[in-house]
Amino acid sequence: MLSVAEARERILGGLQPVGAETVSLPEGWGRVLAAPVAARLTQPPADVSAMDGYAVRAADAVKGARLVVIGAAPAGHPFGGELGPNQAVRIFTGAAVPTGADGILLQEDAESGADGVLVQEDVHPGRWIRRAGLDFHVGEALLPAGRRLTARDIGLAAAANHPWLSVHRQPRVAILATGDEISLPGDPMGAGGIVSSNAHALAALVRAAGGVPIVLPIARDDAEAIAAAAQSARGCDLLVTTGGASVGEHDLVQSALGPAGFALDFWKIAMRPGKPLIWGRLGTTPLLGLPGNPVSSLVCGVVFLWPAIAALGGRPGLLPPLRTARLGAALAANDQRADFLRATLKRDAQGQWVATAFPAQDSSMLKTMARADALLLRAPHAPEAPAGSSVEILVLDELGL
Amino acid sequence: MLSVAEARERILGGLQPVGAETVSLPEGWGRVLAAPVAARLTQPPADVSAMDGYAVRAADAVKGARLVVIGAAPAGHPFGGELGPNQAVRIFTGAAVPTGADGILLQEDAESGADGVLVQEDVHPGRWIRRAGLDFHVGEALLPAGRRLTARDIGLAAAANHPWLSVHRQPRVAILATGDEISLPGDPMGAGGIVSSNAHALAALVRAAGGVPIVLPIARDDAEAIAAAAQSARGCDLLVTTGGASVGEHDLVQSALGPAGFALDFWKIAMRPGKPLIWGRLGTTPLLGLPGNPVSSLVCGVVFLWPAIAALGGRPGLLPPLRTARLGAALAANDQRADFLRATLKRDAQGQWVATAFPAQDSSMLKTMARADALLLRAPHAPEAPAGSSVEILVLDELGL
Repeated sequence: MLSVAEARERILGGLQPVGAETVSLPEGWGRVLAAPVAARLTQPPADVSAMDGYAVRAADAVKGARLVVIGAAPAGHPFGGELGPNQAVRIFTGAAVPTGADGILLQEDAESGADGVLVQEDVHPGRWIRRAGLDFHVGEALLPAGRRLTARDIGLAAAANHPWLSVHRQPRVAILATGDEISLPGDPMGAGGIVSSNAHALAALVRAAGGVPIVLPIARDDAEAIAAAAQSARGCDLLVTTGGASVGEHDLVQSALGPAGFALDFWKIAMRPGKPLIWGRLGTTPLLGLPGNPVSSLVCGVVFLWPAIAALGGRPGLLPPLRTARLGAALAANDQRADFLRATLKRDAQGQWVATAFPAQDSSMLKTMARADALLLRAPHAPEAPAGSSVEILVLDELGL
Repeated sequence: MLSVAEARERILGGLQPVGAETVSLPEGWGRVLAAPVAARLTQPPADVSAMDGYAVRAADAVKGARLVVIGAAPAGHPFGGELGPNQAVRIFTGAAVPTGADGILLQEDAESGADGVLVQEDVHPGRWIRRAGLDFHVGEALLPAGRRLTARDIGLAAAANHPWLSVHRQPRVAILATGDEISLPGDPMGAGGIVSSNAHALAALVRAAGGVPIVLPIARDDAEAIAAAAQSARGCDLLVTTGGASVGEHDLVQSALGPAGFALDFWKIAMRPGKPLIWGRLGTTPLLGLPGNPVSSLVCGVVFLWPAIAALGGRPGLLPPLRTARLGAALAANDQRADFLRATLKRDAQGQWVATAFPAQDSSMLKTMARADALLLRAPHAPEAPAGSSVEILVLDELGL
């Protein structure tokens, strides 16, 4: 059996980031930069006032002095003249400091009258002046390629004068659910039938990871139907199948796609849930075959599909981040398979995570998957772990899952 | 000055969740349920096999026994007959256990031959059988109203046979940037001009919080222009203005909207950055006026706008979650204003957050806002805090910001 790390390495090693596209600034949120963003201007472009008040010469603006107000500089309307001795210019936050001024008399420290303004506190040179370039200088690198853009990044790119951004295309991920027993929610269902849940759960996972899901029609357990459905995924960046990857007689994905000359690997992964996994290439389209069991399919989705979409989408090498928690309840020693236990999270008095695995971990129980806050990782052959010991977790909410 | 908590309480107290709409299951990801989801069927619908193998009578299936295989039950094709003594039915994961059988002989514990199947390990009654309803029973409450749907929830709702979901509409949030000095990225800019960044950063924040932003054209510093722009936001669920809320002469939002009979409050909030805030109602549309400074606008967005959108969107009372971190560098005592410091986060050897505030916190520095991982909270009058002491943080990534 392959280890989780080795399987993931093989998968990620075979994936290249998709190309770039130009999007408008507002479309950039959550997208991954394909080219760095540099400042197209200096911000602030000149020395500006940090407060509302009066631009003054600090040497003149001593407590008790009276200054002549010779003009005003609201933001966006710079004062064109030059400040002479014992003069002041009314100024507002963000407005350029007039030539000749070297300090700001705060509004609350000034008394305005008919014959000028009375200084009530000494002004220090440079105080309340934001220097040109305090935030950034023209040409300065602001956002690197490979960054998934936050709301704050959008603000920064805007401030740096970018109406357009170059981002990676969102990887198109086709999802093919197979099985005679499954039908779509609300559709008629035969005896022994079950409602298909994997495809739409995986589609949401694809969106969370930054991809665009394409849910293919369900393929029946029939080699021709599966082969035809898989062909329709050509042109996608990844084809994900679910079902048909167990070790029984009905492993049709493998047998349906193998004969057509497709390079398919079939792996047993040393993990639970989710032992069987298919990986290969259908023509030029990478193919990831997930188990048909709903919990196994989602756990393998977190462990293998999420980083695959990140890699395709311009963030190669990004793995779901591991966090540390204390165990809320003891765990028995583990066997040779890495275990991904559904667990709830609480905060202790110090604000640290406490993770408690659900007592029942049957891989058909989707309800506990939905109610879990995290997957609790148990390494192969991990010894017994008492309550309070330190464990690694994947926080599902953090992954948008 | 109002406290942050009091201001937020007043804002949230005035907001009602928007109504519901029907969306298809795949559209439900990230949306907030307006009605609970209950199971429309029992899952599994009958006792099913948890493995590939043979359905048997446990009493017959002792090591060395040979059983006659009378049929097969692949998933989706239940075996119609009844199992008699010394008989077996080939069965696959997820298939219904035939009448008469009470245990599963694993495939790897069976040797199949022309004259039946040879039992190589004793079978225990009930082993490898998933009981009807192991995951959920028809009518069982699965997902509560007010829940923002995860990928796993979408899977669970699918499995429970829901093609449609009732979710809250996404609150429509109009955003109005005001100022003579601002222009859109890439647009011509006058002397003393600055590129408008607030509106698009706030638009991304609105999306992250689950709303739909509508960016209004920039309004110049002119009462009539602002009043006209604000009128165009009627019918939205919230109008957010940015700029024009300081204490200078150019506080036009207040003066432009006040005379038309609008109920507007103007508050100074005891916080930094972001002192001035406008809150009120323009006709029936709630209005939140944020500062014009880009960092103040975003910090107030996190503190006031994010929970306002959550409340409008069906999650009343939800606040940005506070986390605990250790201080990476000492902080001086705080004054009377709550401080929201831009900070970086690292993990220590125990996996706990270490938060270090940027040394320069000028509220015009958007670059440090983009580079921050968290806002580090300092309560009013908080005493000096040495490195290593415990502080509260808002993790920006966790908020999708």
